[in-house]
Amino acid sequence: MNLIKRYLPILQWAPRYDRDQATSDLVAAVIVTVMLIPQSLAYALLAGLPAHVGLYASILPLVIYAVFGTSRTLSVGPVAVASLMTAAALAPIAEAGTAAYVAGAVLLAVMSGLMLTLMGVLRLGFLANFLSHPVISGFITASGIVIAASQFKHIFGIQASGHNLVEIAESLLTSLATTNFYTLAIGLGALIFLVAARKHLKPLLMRLGVKPRLADILTKTAPILSVLVTTLVAWYFQLDQKGVRLVGEVPSGLPEFTMPPMDTGLWSQLAVSALLISIVGFVESVSVGQTLAAKRRQRIDPDQELIGLGTANLGSGFSGGMPVTGGFSRSVVNFDAGAETPAAGAYTAVGIALATLFLTPAIAWLPQATLAATIIVAVSTLIDLPALSRTWRYSRTDFGAMLATILLTLVHSVEAGIIAGVALSIGLFLYRTSRPHSAVVGRVPGTEHFRNVLRHDVQLCPKVTFLRVDESLYFANARFLEETVMDLVTREPELRDLVLVCPAVNLIDASALESLEAINERLNDAGVRLHLSEVKGPVMDRLRGTEFLAHLGGQVFLSTFDAWTTLTNHRQPVAQTA
Amino acid sequence: MNLIKRYLPILQWAPRYDRDQATSDLVAAVIVTVMLIPQSLAYALLAGLPAHVGLYASILPLVIYAVFGTSRTLSVGPVAVASLMTAAALAPIAEAGTAAYVAGAVLLAVMSGLMLTLMGVLRLGFLANFLSHPVISGFITASGIVIAASQFKHIFGIQASGHNLVEIAESLLTSLATTNFYTLAIGLGALIFLVAARKHLKPLLMRLGVKPRLADILTKTAPILSVLVTTLVAWYFQLDQKGVRLVGEVPSGLPEFTMPPMDTGLWSQLAVSALLISIVGFVESVSVGQTLAAKRRQRIDPDQELIGLGTANLGSGFSGGMPVTGGFSRSVVNFDAGAETPAAGAYTAVGIALATLFLTPAIAWLPQATLAATIIVAVSTLIDLPALSRTWRYSRTDFGAMLATILLTLVHSVEAGIIAGVALSIGLFLYRTSRPHSAVVGRVPGTEHFRNVLRHDVQLCPKVTFLRVDESLYFANARFLEETVMDLVTREPELRDLVLVCPAVNLIDASALESLEAINERLNDAGVRLHLSEVKGPVMDRLRGTEFLAHLGGQVFLSTFDAWTTLTNHRQPVAQTA
Repeated sequence: MNLIKRYLPILQWAPRYDRDQATSDLVAAVIVTVMLIPQSLAYALLAGLPAHVGLYASILPLVIYAVFGTSRTLSVGPVAVASLMTAAALAPIAEAGTAAYVAGAVLLAVMSGLMLTLMGVLRLGFLANFLSHPVISGFITASGIVIAASQFKHIFGIQASGHNLVEIAESLLTSLATTNFYTLAIGLGALIFLVAARKHLKPLLMRLGVKPRLADILTKTAPILSVLVTTLVAWYFQLDQKGVRLVGEVPSGLPEFTMPPMDTGLWSQLAVSALLISIVGFVESVSVGQTLAAKRRQRIDPDQELIGLGTANLGSGFSGGMPVTGGFSRSVVNFDAGAETPAAGAYTAVGIALATLFLTPAIAWLPQATLAATIIVAVSTLIDLPALSRTWRYSRTDFGAMLATILLTLVHSVEAGIIAGVALSIGLFLYRTSRPHSAVVGRVPGTEHFRNVLRHDVQLCPKVTFLRVDESLYFANARFLEETVMDLVTREPELRDLVLVCPAVNLIDASALESLEAINERLNDAGVRLHLSEVKGPVMDRLRGTEFLAHLGGQVFLSTFDAWTTLTNHRQPVAQTA
Repeated sequence: MNLIKRYLPILQWAPRYDRDQATSDLVAAVIVTVMLIPQSLAYALLAGLPAHVGLYASILPLVIYAVFGTSRTLSVGPVAVASLMTAAALAPIAEAGTAAYVAGAVLLAVMSGLMLTLMGVLRLGFLANFLSHPVISGFITASGIVIAASQFKHIFGIQASGHNLVEIAESLLTSLATTNFYTLAIGLGALIFLVAARKHLKPLLMRLGVKPRLADILTKTAPILSVLVTTLVAWYFQLDQKGVRLVGEVPSGLPEFTMPPMDTGLWSQLAVSALLISIVGFVESVSVGQTLAAKRRQRIDPDQELIGLGTANLGSGFSGGMPVTGGFSRSVVNFDAGAETPAAGAYTAVGIALATLFLTPAIAWLPQATLAATIIVAVSTLIDLPALSRTWRYSRTDFGAMLATILLTLVHSVEAGIIAGVALSIGLFLYRTSRPHSAVVGRVPGTEHFRNVLRHDVQLCPKVTFLRVDESLYFANARFLEETVMDLVTREPELRDLVLVCPAVNLIDASALESLEAINERLNDAGVRLHLSEVKGPVMDRLRGTEFLAHLGGQVFLSTFDAWTTLTNHRQPVAQTA
């Protein structure tokens, strides 16, 4: 039963679902639907797909997530970053908009669904942790910049292409002369309206007596207003004859069952991209989900989230959609609008389904420039440049990984950016642990506490040195330890006892054990006894029964103070640091 | 001056070089030369190269290493494992023995020389640490097995090929019917003689009154004896006419200056192989060098060793040789024979040069089966199977990496084996640190020391929990910490203060800082104050000035005991673990 409940989180809330919850969920669903229609169309275009693919990806996935997902308020569907990554992955496969391209998107959704579900079943959610905070934040910032830049061609009504900032800028500049001014008027108009609405609509509505929460929600529906107005304008003035690019005819009706292409070459070609889309999408989703859950003291289960997102992606792919994940802005709207259970998502799916049934004739008249403006405003919230200086101040290492991610994403590609970021953060971590900090420590007078002689005013004893090693001892730093100890011994000819203070040693692997044996042997030869203190339980468990412990010149002390009293017993502590 | 001395270690000993040292070095050189001639020929054949290439690789490199190397006793030249790796690298490039194949070996030596020298100048010696002890030991064991297996075709006088155990075994079995019994007689004879010599010659000589050290050295020259005898036999009975494969005609005279092929495609094709040969060779050399240096209380400088080996390889390549490195057995012989300075190596080079000038007509009659027997006996010392069970007992993780290395080397290829071993050891280390050990700790009664409640008999206080986290806090475990803390808080509703005991936290990166901020916020909401204790100097330096510290609900205590006295001051410690 517990296992069924774990894999079917719907069983945790559905049996107690009541009318109050249903009302809250319905209200939230209406608001999210209104917001999701333009977003779905826009992100499909961003991915290089026909607009209706975005709608398809916003129906079945939401229903499935309601069954398998653990977040009460996460709203899944096409999102900006995943759409950009989809476009980047499909560019070498086929021309945007072709049947092969659409089939590629379906395949990406299915592969991503399979990968996420498998990772969930195998409980591999921890893998996402290897995307460090600075890397993911840098990646999203850089993606936001690339996405915004890529939309300017729609605002100006020109042809441009490219998958990184350099290519896009070049392409924009060369074709700027062909600007369509009708398009520009609509695009700029929508952009200015949306920016103004974001800044001024809420205060304005509140001054008109609207309650803050409602004003907030109404502000979030500004995109649908711009869609309505520009669609009407385009239809009334027949702007397609003036060269304004519209969304164009969209197949009416619900999505049909779609099989992904079964071309093994294509599968292996898209494997890395699908994995990256999966992991980035998962990390985004989980962090949105956790933030919202914490506000209501709920919890989400990352491994089950993998299954929720995985099955949602499978649903998206098999219904002709594109990769989906939990979106930040729409989840916040869903939460703020009062959604209480994932049923709100299912109701939203009904809303979108109704739109694909009845609104497609109207959508045909929607100018692409309006959608571009929607995207630009939406992704502008993703761009967090102050995070750069914040990270720089705290850690140069993290900053390095972040900057590399941003630069490579901007000038090369999203995939290069994220891979470099992950590789660099792991590499820098390994480098750091391979040259560990160590400190000679002395006793803080009058206590049983020992601290670094260079930082604190402590007591020392000339014949006994206490060396604290601030890292687990493993292959990457085993030789470093040998060198540190031997240097110390060479510098202090009077030395008789060396105590390795080990509270920070969380692991001694086989390589480090050999180093310790070598150290012990060399110290024995030099007439110095090697002792250990504050060895942790799990580490001590392993050392028991090893040759090293059998040959250890000195003792293993429970605490450093024990070592101090035993080894300096008959000797007055003579030195004290200033 | 210091910089010149660092880059030219010869300046450290040459100015004080005296007659006694020269005598010792000369004696050692004669012994090593006698040993090195058959080894050089054998390892060239193992690499699929004409035998004289091995001699070429044993002249200039030794002279150069004498100038740039820091080990007093390391003997460089062709070695078994590097020769096997050379053969594996060149197999896809050209047919063994062809001019293109020889040119490939020259290129490998030059590339490996460039890489090592560059790594030395950039002081990247620490990179070698990422080859963990179990991985390198497993790799050498597996290589030894593959090498031994590959030599049986020479013993049986049959045609066989393959670069892993499976291929070699298959190939051997299918052509066993074509065994040449003259070859088998010589091969088995040499093999039995060498094995017997290794086991019984020393005791025999000692019983005949030879001093132990001399007996030891004479035992090591058994290979040259088998070479002499079988060469004479082959020549006397004209065994080439009976189908016994001989080394054949070898160009007489000193090596000439050789340019590596300047084909960029070839360079990039061999890059990974050259890097692996470089790193494996370097690790082998340094560990031999360090072992020998420690015995005489000398030190070697790993970064300068990179330069020594790098320039030696450049010398080898440009004089038509193959990749070289410091060999274990010959260095031990050099050491035991009394070599005192690298000049012994230079004298050995002279010996080998004389051999290429005058001994080549004789070498032509040497049966390949004899060399194969020499190789089999030499590599049998590399095979260390007990290391497997030793590693298994100490650490399953290390054992896993070791076993993967061995199996992949045996059934796939040397390169796959070493790469998998390194990747697996890094991956397992990261996995382990991503799920850190943590423990609730209590006070060891009557002391200021705190230990795990599950392992020790300690005092507790119900409203204050001390949680010790046994790992640096970084991106891979940041979320894990959040979960651990929130689980703890949910389990203990009475909790008012949570102290994170941090002596094992050697780093808090930007991701972990965000997690700590989130933890602090959630604990504040839950009415629990978060404190830190025993934060290390370098970690505290970073935390200063962060938002986290400004918003911290509780305090930062120098010692856990401070936290205990402050927080449990007016409350009697009520619980004590049994």
